[in-house]
Amino acid sequence: MATYGFVEYEDASAAVRAVYDDIRTVRQTDYINNFWKALAHDPATLRRTWESVKQIMGPGGALDPLVKEMIYVAVSATNGCGYCVASHTVAAKRAGMTPEMFGELMAVVGMANETNRLAVGYQIEIDERFRTSSLP
Amino acid sequence: MATYGFVEYEDASAAVRAVYDDIRTVRQTDYINNFWKALAHDPATLRRTWESVKQIMGPGGALDPLVKEMIYVAVSATNGCGYCVASHTVAAKRAGMTPEMFGELMAVVGMANETNRLAVGYQIEIDERFRTSSLP
Amino acid sequence: MATYGFVEYEDASAAVRAVYDDIRTVRQTDYINNFWKALAHDPATLRRTWESVKQIMGPGGALDPLVKEMIYVAVSATNGCGYCVASHTVAAKRAGMTPEMFGELMAVVGMANETNRLAVGYQIEIDERFRTSSLP
Amino acid sequence: MATYGFVEYEDASAAVRAVYDDIRTVRQTDYINNFWKALAHDPATLRRTWESVKQIMGPGGALDPLVKEMIYVAVSATNGCGYCVASHTVAAKRAGMTPEMFGELMAVVGMANETNRLAVGYQIEIDERFRTSSLP
Amino acid sequence: MATYGFVEYEDASAAVRAVYDDIRTVRQTDYINNFWKALAHDPATLRRTWESVKQIMGPGGALDPLVKEMIYVAVSATNGCGYCVASHTVAAKRAGMTPEMFGELMAVVGMANETNRLAVGYQIEIDERFRTSSLP
Amino acid sequence: MATYGFVEYEDASAAVRAVYDDIRTVRQTDYINNFWKALAHDPATLRRTWESVKQIMGPGGALDPLVKEMIYVAVSATNGCGYCVASHTVAAKRAGMTPEMFGELMAVVGMANETNRLAVGYQIEIDERFRTSSLP
Repeated sequence: MATYGFVEYEDASAAVRAVYDDIRTVRQTDYINNFWKALAHDPATLRRTWESVKQIMGPGGALDPLVKEMIYVAVSATNGCGYCVASHTVAAKRAGMTPEMFGELMAVVGMANETNRLAVGYQIEIDERFRTSSLP
Repeated sequence: MATYGFVEYEDASAAVRAVYDDIRTVRQTDYINNFWKALAHDPATLRRTWESVKQIMGPGGALDPLVKEMIYVAVSATNGCGYCVASHTVAAKRAGMTPEMFGELMAVVGMANETNRLAVGYQIEIDERFRTSSLP
Repeated sequence: MATYGFVEYEDASAAVRAVYDDIRTVRQTDYINNFWKALAHDPATLRRTWESVKQIMGPGGALDPLVKEMIYVAVSATNGCGYCVASHTVAAKRAGMTPEMFGELMAVVGMANETNRLAVGYQIEIDERFRTSSLP
Repeated sequence: MATYGFVEYEDASAAVRAVYDDIRTVRQTDYINNFWKALAHDPATLRRTWESVKQIMGPGGALDPLVKEMIYVAVSATNGCGYCVASHTVAAKRAGMTPEMFGELMAVVGMANETNRLAVGYQIEIDERFRTSSLP
Repeated sequence: MATYGFVEYEDASAAVRAVYDDIRTVRQTDYINNFWKALAHDPATLRRTWESVKQIMGPGGALDPLVKEMIYVAVSATNGCGYCVASHTVAAKRAGMTPEMFGELMAVVGMANETNRLAVGYQIEIDERFRTSSLP
Repeated sequence: MATYGFVEYEDASAAVRAVYDDIRTVRQTDYINNFWKALAHDPATLRRTWESVKQIMGPGGALDPLVKEMIYVAVSATNGCGYCVASHTVAAKRAGMTPEMFGELMAVVGMANETNRLAVGYQIEIDERFRTSSLP
């Protein structure tokens, strides 16, 4: 299910097929997941989102892809997005996440969510030294 | 500012001092930040929260402390917690986060927040293969 | 499913029936959706919520009903409320939302969610001119 | 304030200046707001974010720019992003939002946030007809 | 500060004054807080919101006013609303909240936020017995 | 379903069984719900979370267990956590929550979510008297 259903490759316009082809090449798989097939109803959003994901999540940056996938899962769990937790947990596993890493990831996510609310609930002012830290 | 103000070391009970002393030892600094000084009005929560943070965020696990601090920042930015972003960004820098790493961290956080909402807004069903993935 | 089940018209009290009747009249349909049938267990909340929705979402104001329904969908997607996305997407379509409008709505929702977190994560201070804008 | 401060035009690299120049041209103003000057520490994110905002928020689509700015404010209020509420409220006013429109916008945002939580709290199942609506 | 500033009693229309008068009578204080003075730019929203708050938060229901104020603080801390935490913490204190009660309130809020994210992050299916509980 | 499935008692390690046994003793039931069986893949998180829940949610504090369960439901509904709403609504009913109490709980949760967003959307500054309240 998706608001306008899924656009399959064989029914896709040339613009959508070009994105699907690139996804397949970059990810080295024939599988196009539901997220992209739902977005394909809006080819401009499909292309922009895919180009951004490809640029941000790929290898070669200062953070390795496994760390980036775990950050993605952390955000998705915090936002309560079931789809994104499911898809990026699989992506993180493919990138090398072990059950022990997942356990620690969740422990940090849980703790951060807890202390985030304590900081707000106790109305805690930011320490001057955090505002003026000279650390690069 | 904080709901009941801050508990300074010299005004603290023995139970609170014991936690402050442990924070100083573990963090190798004399500085106790506002978060702990506000929580000190409830010694049980102070102790439990500190013991949890110490257990979760310390070295020796499957994720290194820098990665855990970046996950903490990711969650805090997603929740809009100014205090936590400020304090954990400093902690991440101390643990070795470079400006390049921070830039990529934010790029992933931004992208995840964007696609989390697209997945919900388009009402996208979870792919069967994500539910039944046999990856360990 | 709902915490206390659904209250059907034939089992409803006079107070609940009066609200159901008004919903049917205003919406020009016999259908009462699950939201109202669940809320009916608390007649005071049912009435107050319906009166507010009727006052806010109806025609004749400064914003037309289609715009208001799209704003409703934007908030609901941001909050991750599956029920509300489903019901208000249908309402928006009934009010004239085309697939192109929906695509743009989602693009804005995604972008806003992304930049909201960047603004917090980068700890960006509000520009003086935004605080003191003299625009009416 | 911002995590790495602001990049002013005179200190900016050619890549950053190119984005600033484009912002000035598109927005027909010399003013570059803090958001872009903070993001400029990561030129790739600066460029990608600006290109996306320009593509999404500009004129010529199915939704007019005023409606898109109001949707931006709705999301930002829901996420509790002070920076984004301040900047996009000014942008919405520039695009023609009257005080009456703002009042109705907020009324819808408030109501949607209220019913979003009622739908979750009452554990209300989605109506079959919302899942299978044949509206285009 | 507020988007359109504050409406003071002496500058208010008759419709706004009537609400201000009622607030003063019900709350037995001359003080009108900023929330109402900002909302007064939209008299319809001012009236509706005040009537709802009066109906929901007053005495005589199944929950006593102190419990309701603490629930309000719990929601406001979870949403990161500084204004609402500040105002409703004062209201809860006026209704009899002690520092010990506040400490426990925050402990529950923190714990709930932590386990909420663990439940989503671990993708935990709802127990059949929670769906079919026959408890009234 | 859960990311790594559920750990049943007969397959559990001694460390996990010790927690399960304590849950059974404290709750006076044989039933271990899915939340704990999913967390059991990370025995350290299982133990820490259970010990915290036991400390926070049990009797003998300044708030009675029913009030604490209702606060838990309030937070869970605000965060959109279906699992937590389902499990803690049952726990609140067991602790004595009546349908009338639930109705009022939801009314407060809805209202707080509405006014939280209005306060942010209208950019309302905190009243000086809320910051400097001398109430204990």
